[in-house]
Amino acid sequence: MYEQVLALLEEKKYPELKAMLSEMNEADIAAIFEDLPPEKLPLVYRILPKELAAEVFVNMESDAQELLILAFSDNELREVLDELYVDDAVDMIEEMPATVVKRILQHTDPEVRKSINEILQYPEDSAGSLMTIEYVDLKKYMTVDDAFTRIRRTGVDKETIYICYVTDENRKLLGIVTVKDLLLSEKSKKIFEIMDTNIISVNTLEDKEVVADKFQKYDLLALPVVDQENRLVGIITIDDAMDVLQDENTEDIEKMAAITPTDKPYLKMSVFETYKKRIPWLLLLMVSATFTEKIIGHFEGALTACVALTAFIPMLTGTCGNCGAQSSATIIRGLSLGDIEFRDTFKVIFKEFRIALVCGITLGIVNFAKLMLFDDVGAYVALAVSFTMVMAVVFAKIVGSVLPVFAKKIGFDPAVMSSPFISTIVDAVTLLIYFKVATLILHL
Amino acid sequence: MYEQVLALLEEKKYPELKAMLSEMNEADIAAIFEDLPPEKLPLVYRILPKELAAEVFVNMESDAQELLILAFSDNELREVLDELYVDDAVDMIEEMPATVVKRILQHTDPEVRKSINEILQYPEDSAGSLMTIEYVDLKKYMTVDDAFTRIRRTGVDKETIYICYVTDENRKLLGIVTVKDLLLSEKSKKIFEIMDTNIISVNTLEDKEVVADKFQKYDLLALPVVDQENRLVGIITIDDAMDVLQDENTEDIEKMAAITPTDKPYLKMSVFETYKKRIPWLLLLMVSATFTEKIIGHFEGALTACVALTAFIPMLTGTCGNCGAQSSATIIRGLSLGDIEFRDTFKVIFKEFRIALVCGITLGIVNFAKLMLFDDVGAYVALAVSFTMVMAVVFAKIVGSVLPVFAKKIGFDPAVMSSPFISTIVDAVTLLIYFKVATLILHL
Repeated sequence: MYEQVLALLEEKKYPELKAMLSEMNEADIAAIFEDLPPEKLPLVYRILPKELAAEVFVNMESDAQELLILAFSDNELREVLDELYVDDAVDMIEEMPATVVKRILQHTDPEVRKSINEILQYPEDSAGSLMTIEYVDLKKYMTVDDAFTRIRRTGVDKETIYICYVTDENRKLLGIVTVKDLLLSEKSKKIFEIMDTNIISVNTLEDKEVVADKFQKYDLLALPVVDQENRLVGIITIDDAMDVLQDENTEDIEKMAAITPTDKPYLKMSVFETYKKRIPWLLLLMVSATFTEKIIGHFEGALTACVALTAFIPMLTGTCGNCGAQSSATIIRGLSLGDIEFRDTFKVIFKEFRIALVCGITLGIVNFAKLMLFDDVGAYVALAVSFTMVMAVVFAKIVGSVLPVFAKKIGFDPAVMSSPFISTIVDAVTLLIYFKVATLILHL
Repeated sequence: MYEQVLALLEEKKYPELKAMLSEMNEADIAAIFEDLPPEKLPLVYRILPKELAAEVFVNMESDAQELLILAFSDNELREVLDELYVDDAVDMIEEMPATVVKRILQHTDPEVRKSINEILQYPEDSAGSLMTIEYVDLKKYMTVDDAFTRIRRTGVDKETIYICYVTDENRKLLGIVTVKDLLLSEKSKKIFEIMDTNIISVNTLEDKEVVADKFQKYDLLALPVVDQENRLVGIITIDDAMDVLQDENTEDIEKMAAITPTDKPYLKMSVFETYKKRIPWLLLLMVSATFTEKIIGHFEGALTACVALTAFIPMLTGTCGNCGAQSSATIIRGLSLGDIEFRDTFKVIFKEFRIALVCGITLGIVNFAKLMLFDDVGAYVALAVSFTMVMAVVFAKIVGSVLPVFAKKIGFDPAVMSSPFISTIVDAVTLLIYFKVATLILHL
């Protein structure tokens, strides 16, 4: 597709290009446009039919948007801005440099500008910052027929018309009516007779994680956002909730790999930006590993007496680290999906203990057999290594499951208590067990 | 809430309980019911108003559903089944033991039973297995008014009415019309004049990952599922797509922690089931760690000559493992979000190389300073450790970024090439570098 567009563009076959693009989906066009040489972008963008153009614009990454805005005449800019929903305009503005923002706001309708500025006030990652103000509101004494008239008159500019919000004169949210309810009701029925008063809503200041959870739990298409006085100020639609869900998952995965989370895609980050997200954790974990140095230093005598012991250090710390990583990943995910709650702590620990015991014994036996059959070490060394394995695996799995639950309890993100962090603790304890066991069994 | 329900139940205050439950959301009721003592479940379920009861049933976990089905009379069972959408019925049946399935199918309407059996034929995780057959279909020569009549007549049983599908006499999918289009068009317009023929659809056999990606990319509310001849066989709604998205994320996180993925929530798995998902990877990685034993064994002479070197092994392998884990997690996530493509490979490697260089140098300098200032080791040992750090970090980050891209290219899931796997490779190479560098610098 990309090659075709580029070829038609090079050959200046603009009518063919226009015909081809008109048949395509806006998300696909946006993806192609982003990959075009930047100097071609304004030209090809102007080939698009007007309505499609605005839709393509919304679907593009912010750097392509910025490039276009700089190339736009005032008129073109105004046309695009008129087509944007307020939440999309806010998303865009948040990514732009100040001069571009100023120009955007200058050419926005004053009413809309006010809303944009209001939404920009909400804290990042709050429900307020995600919402749009384009929803259909109804009054309780309207009839179903009145409601349809209102939807037909105002619906074209609304982000969703399928969920309508019933408010009183103070904008307090009274109920919710779906278009399905409206279509399946008598035309003369009053809205208050059919509205659902059992409302799931979210406060403007609530975290976006709560927003995503509510969409999932209640299978919503849109979620009303209310202020402290329960006045309706906006709605969040499911497409935005899905993006939040993906962002939250990315954040968890990054934290679990000891990276400070970021919203920016990998390829858009500079080397230095990426470095800053990674180095603090690496330094912290490196310095924490000092414990392992001290432990080995302390048992230098034993190691000198039996140098063979050294060979198994990485295998032991590695395997036990993996065991801890499995437990912590499982528990962190369970906590984030709501499958595991704080009251399950003892159930979780007991379960991990039993899993650890069977895993540890399996690993210990296989390891013992391998050491005796293939490696030329004495039975005592094999026994020391294998026995350490069993004990350290049990420790690793219990630490790996307890720390995330505990972190959540004291208000930290459990995802931080994952593989790198757990490994650092497990390494130290594994070594302690190893040397204690070895000195006992080998009489060092 | 849970305590209140339990108290009212204990005191046999059934009318109060009914009033209270009637005001609540079905998902919340289901969550409370699942936690009740099993013997109370059928009783309290029968208190619910009939319509709410079916909705609560759909929201419950399969073990609670099974318990209820066993307690239901044939009539009760038929009533609940009548209210289920076909995709929910299929989900439920997939979790039930054979005898319960038999009883369910006996009491299902023959028409629906046929559809259920058809959907059960599709491979697990295919689009076909996710779909429902309850959609609104329209014909191209209908008017907008006809369309509304059809929606009003059949809509009550459809999972979504907001997206309607225009099919010809052979059930071929011709176009899509939204209720928004219908509401904003003249009543006398013909459907073919307003339908969107630029259709995003999915084939029955396509993987569920593709389904989730399409929902995200195109911001859909529903996705039509077609067979090889482009005949419409069903639709997938966004609530199911969101569940798929979460499942895919869980799978990735599990694979990244060296666990064989599973659909079952943690607390529902037996110790032995969990063990089976974890032990193969632990064994594989443990045996792979044999390389580290061999390397250390090979350099036993150097270690005997300078025992102090041993102390830094876990710190070096740990830190380099963390570096590799950061890169692999970033790249795996980028690949799964579509932010990184195969053609970006060289860009990625070059970027990781530069990041690795600054990270490695930072870590090396801090480590050198720490060793010289706080630990009582000679300058040569400090130099050997720190220089190893720089080189091994560069290696770790490049391996961590290349392997996931490469895995994806040859058709494997990149998530497998994550922390535990990378660490095993990085451990071995770090040791090799360490001993080579140490023997050179310390003339061992």
